[in-house]
Amino acid sequence: MAKHGRLSDPFRVDKPRKFRLEDVDPEDTRGLKDEEHAEDVLRRGVEELAEEQEKLYAQDRWSLLLVFQAMDAAGKDSTIKHVMSGVNPAGCQVFSFKAPSSEEIDHDFLWRCVKCLPERGRIGIFNRSYYEEVLVVRVHPEFLQRQQLPDRLVTKRIWDERLEDIAAFEKHLARSGVAVIKFFLNVSKKEQKRRFLARLDEPEKNWKFNVGDVKERERWDEYMGAYEEAIRATSTGECPWYVVPADNKWYMRAVVADAVVARMKALDLEFPVMDEERRRGLEEARSFLKDRRSGRREGGE
Amino acid sequence: MAKHGRLSDPFRVDKPRKFRLEDVDPEDTRGLKDEEHAEDVLRRGVEELAEEQEKLYAQDRWSLLLVFQAMDAAGKDSTIKHVMSGVNPAGCQVFSFKAPSSEEIDHDFLWRCVKCLPERGRIGIFNRSYYEEVLVVRVHPEFLQRQQLPDRLVTKRIWDERLEDIAAFEKHLARSGVAVIKFFLNVSKKEQKRRFLARLDEPEKNWKFNVGDVKERERWDEYMGAYEEAIRATSTGECPWYVVPADNKWYMRAVVADAVVARMKALDLEFPVMDEERRRGLEEARSFLKDRRSGRREGGE
Repeated sequence: MAKHGRLSDPFRVDKPRKFRLEDVDPEDTRGLKDEEHAEDVLRRGVEELAEEQEKLYAQDRWSLLLVFQAMDAAGKDSTIKHVMSGVNPAGCQVFSFKAPSSEEIDHDFLWRCVKCLPERGRIGIFNRSYYEEVLVVRVHPEFLQRQQLPDRLVTKRIWDERLEDIAAFEKHLARSGVAVIKFFLNVSKKEQKRRFLARLDEPEKNWKFNVGDVKERERWDEYMGAYEEAIRATSTGECPWYVVPADNKWYMRAVVADAVVARMKALDLEFPVMDEERRRGLEEARSFLKDRRSGRREGGE
Repeated sequence: MAKHGRLSDPFRVDKPRKFRLEDVDPEDTRGLKDEEHAEDVLRRGVEELAEEQEKLYAQDRWSLLLVFQAMDAAGKDSTIKHVMSGVNPAGCQVFSFKAPSSEEIDHDFLWRCVKCLPERGRIGIFNRSYYEEVLVVRVHPEFLQRQQLPDRLVTKRIWDERLEDIAAFEKHLARSGVAVIKFFLNVSKKEQKRRFLARLDEPEKNWKFNVGDVKERERWDEYMGAYEEAIRATSTGECPWYVVPADNKWYMRAVVADAVVARMKALDLEFPVMDEERRRGLEEARSFLKDRRSGRREGGE
């Protein structure tokens, strides 16, 4: 079986200062022969992920935070569905961050995501995240204005400051036992157009179509600039970005699953070891149950 | 009237690297003649604070976070009561952080305090705070163990890392429009003993007495060391510490009120200015109400 991470490692941003989005090919399918091969790899990945999650939950030391960011129609929802559908939902929660509420907007920009952080032992999935604050808010200055910041705090340094705050926040998470992985599902503008047209042409996909999404295509280059800066400023050894080719959904899913399994394997998760004292406790429990069964204590069952 | 901050400025830690707790005198009463003088100053401070809060609320741009830390019996509760009792409770909330719940302990150490941050336009007061994580948790390693961090993250650098994370978190708050002030109410060990004895001797103070608090006196020097390091690592121009002499409660309260008013004055709070458009809106509302009153629209009232 392939070593964990072999498929996804090439897409991890290990040298953030040298990272350029235009060097990445959204159509890349390296390492996998075809869709069938990808499905095999994905299926094995989902199984391993489910096993690792059991250990994560039982050990109760680490938690895992998966952040998904992408342009519309890149396949965030379907990737989450296909990669995570093997895990026990009791240990996994998905949060989608859309337009903020008025309570949320009255707090600092990390606040609403902090509230949703996974507990120890769990997997948290952010479908969009605090990164929106340096992406859509950067591309649309009217969203920043709505945040009612004091004028003296809104300077041209604000995006660098926000990226610095995000990096410090994620470092704090890493130090607190939250393993963070961030995925940018990198779809091409051409493939996005094809998927939008499919949403218009196929009646069962109509519900996914949103006129506003098409208008955002005009700002494609601005978005790519904002993504590139965000990835350069916040990809670290502890909290890496993966820029995953997204023009072939089957490829994207296999890569994401591989990255998640590789990260979990590196945590050395294991079921808690029973030491002498705990083993004695288990034995006592066993004899207590046997006593009850043979009716010696509470009058039989 | 005295310039705002004149009383409290000497106790703000502006040169954190040179700060030493032993250089500070808990009995200091400089700048005030006697208790009566202090009460005058406090009364004026409370009035000004109430005025500033109205503007803070109306302007809805900044919020204010006051953090109170101290050894037991230093007077946190009574200071909060006396300094803040003039403000409108609709715009002010006090949170006391005691032993963490199991949900809280399953998150990073900032989490439970982040959830309680004041909304824009409000004053938030933390009676104890995330600083406990580098104070009581540092002095009692068993509390750290209870946090179930992965072993590889618990190194001898952990306290420096926590202080770094706190500093980064507060910088993020400052950038988000939360003005943070931190008070260490600096009571002497001798005065604490006197107050504990009073709690034992005076029946109406008995309820405040806690046997555990007396045992903590044995770790006094460790606590002082932890406070000193925390203050040195996190007192900044934006989020300063005040080390307030606490052996005389009347003095302490006047100093705290002065520091809060001075900080709010520096925010240049003002009632929102009505521009031409909003003024026109107000005029339209006036004629609408007049129409109703004279019965021309909805049949009279």
